Order: sequence, then C-alpha cells, then structure tokens
Amino acid sequence: MTTSDVMSGVLAPVVTPFKADLSADTERLITHCKWLLSQDCGLAVFGTNSEANSLTMDERFELLDSLVDAGLDPARMMPGTGCCSIFDSVALTKRAIQLGCGGVLMLPPFYYKAVSDEGIYRSFAQIIERCGDDRLRIYLYHFPQMSAVPFSIDLIGRLLEDFPGIVVGMKDSSGDQANLEAVMKAFPGFGMFAGNETLLLANMRLGGAGCISATANVNPAGIVNLFDNWEADNANEVQAGLDIVREAVQQFVLIPAMKKMISHYGSDQEWNRVRPPLIELDNAQSGKLIDDLDALGFEMPGLAG
Amino acid sequence: MTTSDVMSGVLAPVVTPFKADLSADTERLITHCKWLLSQDCGLAVFGTNSEANSLTMDERFELLDSLVDAGLDPARMMPGTGCCSIFDSVALTKRAIQLGCGGVLMLPPFYYKAVSDEGIYRSFAQIIERCGDDRLRIYLYHFPQMSAVPFSIDLIGRLLEDFPGIVVGMKDSSGDQANLEAVMKAFPGFGMFAGNETLLLANMRLGGAGCISATANVNPAGIVNLFDNWEADNANEVQAGLDIVREAVQQFVLIPAMKKMISHYGSDQEWNRVRPPLIELDNAQSGKLIDDLDALGFEMPGLAG
Repeated sequence: MTTSDVMSGVLAPVVTPFKADLSADTERLITHCKWLLSQDCGLAVFGTNSEANSLTMDERFELLDSLVDAGLDPARMMPGTGCCSIFDSVALTKRAIQLGCGGVLMLPPFYYKAVSDEGIYRSFAQIIERCGDDRLRIYLYHFPQMSAVPFSIDLIGRLLEDFPGIVVGMKDSSGDQANLEAVMKAFPGFGMFAGNETLLLANMRLGGAGCISATANVNPAGIVNLFDNWEADNANEVQAGLDIVREAVQQFVLIPAMKKMISHYGSDQEWNRVRPPLIELDNAQSGKLIDDLDALGFEMPGLAG
Repeated sequence: MTTSDVMSGVLAPVVTPFKADLSADTERLITHCKWLLSQDCGLAVFGTNSEANSLTMDERFELLDSLVDAGLDPARMMPGTGCCSIFDSVALTKRAIQLGCGGVLMLPPFYYKAVSDEGIYRSFAQIIERCGDDRLRIYLYHFPQMSAVPFSIDLIGRLLEDFPGIVVGMKDSSGDQANLEAVMKAFPGFGMFAGNETLLLANMRLGGAGCISATANVNPAGIVNLFDNWEADNANEVQAGLDIVREAVQQFVLIPAMKKMISHYGSDQEWNRVRPPLIELDNAQSGKLIDDLDALGFEMPGLAG
C-alpha cells in the first residue's frame, strides 16, 4: 500500500433527491455532486445521510453507474456498500471497484445486534474474499448510535493484520473524541475520517485523513478550508466558526434540514423531499432553520448554477 | 374483515439452512417446513430467526416461490416482508399476496433510529397504497431490542383506523407482558401473537391469536399442545414445561443453538451453519446444549423423516 492509496480530505455523504413519486432524482443528484466536487469536496454517496438504506439495491447500482457515466471522477467517490446481507455488500462493492471508486465505506451487517467481534470479522473476511480484488479499499463505518454494531479496537487490529492494504481506514461517527484518539494511537497512519467536522481539527492533529460530514453537503467550502489550513494559527477559530453553522443545522433532524437548505438556497422546491421513515421539516422548523442561518450570514454560493 | 381473515395458532420463524458456500439450501428448507406443518405449526418464513436480513431480496423471492411450488399451503405462511427500503417491502409483499400467503409480518424500516410515529406511519401507508390489494393482511412486527423502532399504542391505533382489515395484528417480541396487555386492552380482537411461547398462555387469556416463536422450530408439538389446550386445568403446568425447554435453548444465541439442535436430532451436519455476522456454537456450547436437552428427555420426533 502506498500513501496515495488512502483517500483524504473532506467528503459529503451526498443527500439523495427524490421526485414526487419518491423515485430517485438522478439528474439533481448529478448536479449536486458536481457542485460538491467544484468545492473540492469528495463524494461519499450512499451514506447514512444519503438515505442509502431507504434505497433498493437496483437503485444504488443505477445511481452509481449514472454518476460515473456523467463524467464525475470515481477516484473522488467512496460509496457506502455495507448492507445487511453480505451478498448484497459483495455485489455493490464489486461494482464500486469496477467503476474505479477510490474506496468504499462499509457498515457491518446491521440488523442483528449484540453480535460478536468474530461474527463481524467473518462478515468482512467473506466480503473481501468474495470480491477477490487487490484494488479494494475499505473504510470501516463505525456508527454505534445508528448501526448498533460497533468496531472494537481488537477487531480493527485483526482486520488490519489480516487484510493489509485492503482495510485502510475508518469513518468514526461515534462523535467520541476518546475513541478517535484510541484508534489513532493504536494504528498510526490509519486513514481515519472524523464523522463530522466538529472533530476535524482534532482528527488532523492526531494524524487523521479528514472528515466525512453530513453538513459538507451544505457547507463544503468552509469545511474544506479548515482541512486545507488546519496547521494555520487561526485554526481553532475556523473550527469554532464551522461549529456554529453545524449547531444551527443539527437543531433539527439533519437529513430533512439539509434538504430544506438546498431547496431554499438553490431555489428548488423539488429538493425538499425525504423517503419514509423520515419526514420533512414542518413550516415552523423550516422558518427557524433559515432565519438562524441567515442571521449567521450563511450562503451556498454557486448552488443553483 | 371477517374472523377467518386473521391467522391464529403457533408459527415458527423458520430457520434457513445454508450450504457450504453459504447459499440458501432450498431442499432442506422445504423439508423443515413440511415437518413443521406436520406438527400443525405455521410458517413465519423470513423472520429474525430465519436470518432473513442476511438474505438478498432475490433469495427471498426464490425461496418463497420454491415453498409454494413444493405444494406447501401458502395460507399457513406469514413471510417477513419489512425491509429498510419501503420499495423492497412493497415488492416482497406483493409477491406474498400473489402467492396467497395468509399474511405478512412487517418490520418497520429499521436502519434509521429515533424516527417519529409519523414517519413509521407514512412508511406503512406508502407500502399499503403501493400494494393496492384488498387481500393484504399485515401483522406489525414489534421488536424494539432488534429493530430499535417500536410501535407505540398511538401508532397502532392510527394504522388500525386508517387501514381496517389490512392491519390486523402484531407480533410482540418485546417480551414485555405489560405491553401485550396494554395493546390488547386498547384494541380488543387484535390479532396478537406473543413473540415467544413464554407469554403464549398469558396472551391467549388476553384474547390473543397465538405465538410466533423461534423455538417453535424445535419444539412445535409442545407449543401447539398449549395453544390447543390453553383453557385446560393444567395449562399453567404445560406452560412451565415449555419454559424449561426454552431456557435450555436460549442459554445460547438462539439461531445457532436451534440449528445445532436440528443438526443433532436430525443427524444432519449440513444444518449446523449460519451466515455472518452470526457464528455457530463452539464444541463446548454444543455439548452443554445437547446434554441439558437430553437431561430433559427432549426429542424432535419425525425430524429426519
């Protein structure tokens, strides 16, 4: 494994637009991905915030193909490919490899709870062996609050030892800085992405690779600016500025809040739609969100272009 | 809705056998289903204990078709059709209706946590409307420990009011007798299945429909006997006898323990296999399980036939 094999920077778990019939809106997704890339933000499509687990497998295949067909750089893509069934994970991961994606972000199988490290290990071993491709680069998706299936330090160590150059990093969405520190101390050089930008500076100081953050969908340039300048004297202030925007967004459920923002700042009502079991913000919530952001002077330049 | 529209009795969330390459073993599944039916036990295929969420959608379609093609009575089937994506749920539910299944057992979308009742309601409303078939009979699958998405009394009431004759019952796998009582008090006549046989007698006394229990895979006749004789003088003793067997099985993880039992009592090593993230019992666990069951005089008559 060479250093260039590990992705770095800021990636957005790209939100997925839906049409009135709740089918995926491929054209709007491509447009949003182009805007994110124009802000130097990578594409973690099919993440939690993409409502990926509300998409069928066929939809995920079609959307991923469409993005690459549209000329977007697959090297900047880290699609989520971890499904409940390891056979689905294998199929989607193979497609990502074939398309040249820079890596994949992999949830463990997440229906069964209280499973053993051995069981999670076997899941990943099966997926890796069935993919059988040296180009595979896996980032473990640690999100105990949502998957309820955490990666222990022991498990990460075992995967790194048995699959060197294949398991190369992690997204830590626990929000627990102590966990970030423990993992980076145990595995220096690990391709660690903070699960959101509030821990981006801390993660960079620990030698991490960047962050994959929901709010990179709406504030990519600001977050990329911190990534580019994390060693600057004013980095703490820049971090604090990002945190204020984040707070304004996450006072509501993130996915509908971000879709409202894209809808509002991009003047496109079509964006303001989620799939059940999520629901859109109501009028009062939407009003407060935009008021709070306007008060901060928040903008999304170039969005509608 | 007529009374005959609501299923009742004892159903097993049928365990799914796997071949050495971890593909589903259709022939062994058919054989096991035939044995269960011979014990007057219904077939809740694709439940939690079926490792359904470790199966792909294609596998679920093929297995369900195969069971009906093999001549098994679809009226005794209540397949699990609740997926993360409502579009998958619609497709699988439509197939179940077309095949004549007696009902479907439906998990809510289970990836996103802390979702609102309104969001769960919209999920079911979308599924019901997109199926668009009066033959649909939905049993809500309440299993907060696994799905982490519970059904509140308010939500159940709203679904019953808006979809009368379609939403007809529930499997309550919470293990919480107080919840069972609260639901039955709120909705007399609701087709309530206890989530395992330890609450079967209590549920029948509350006016419930029966139970859907993992251990019906291995002890169907015993559990059916209590269902048939729940008003008998010795019902409490029969319940206590079932509980002792249940305890012996659930001292280990249920799915691999039951597969070990079918493998042992049916003299068929091929049954002793699970899909990751689950793992098989080790030798010590297997030994203790069988020793404990033998000490109880436990048998699975007719299994190998």
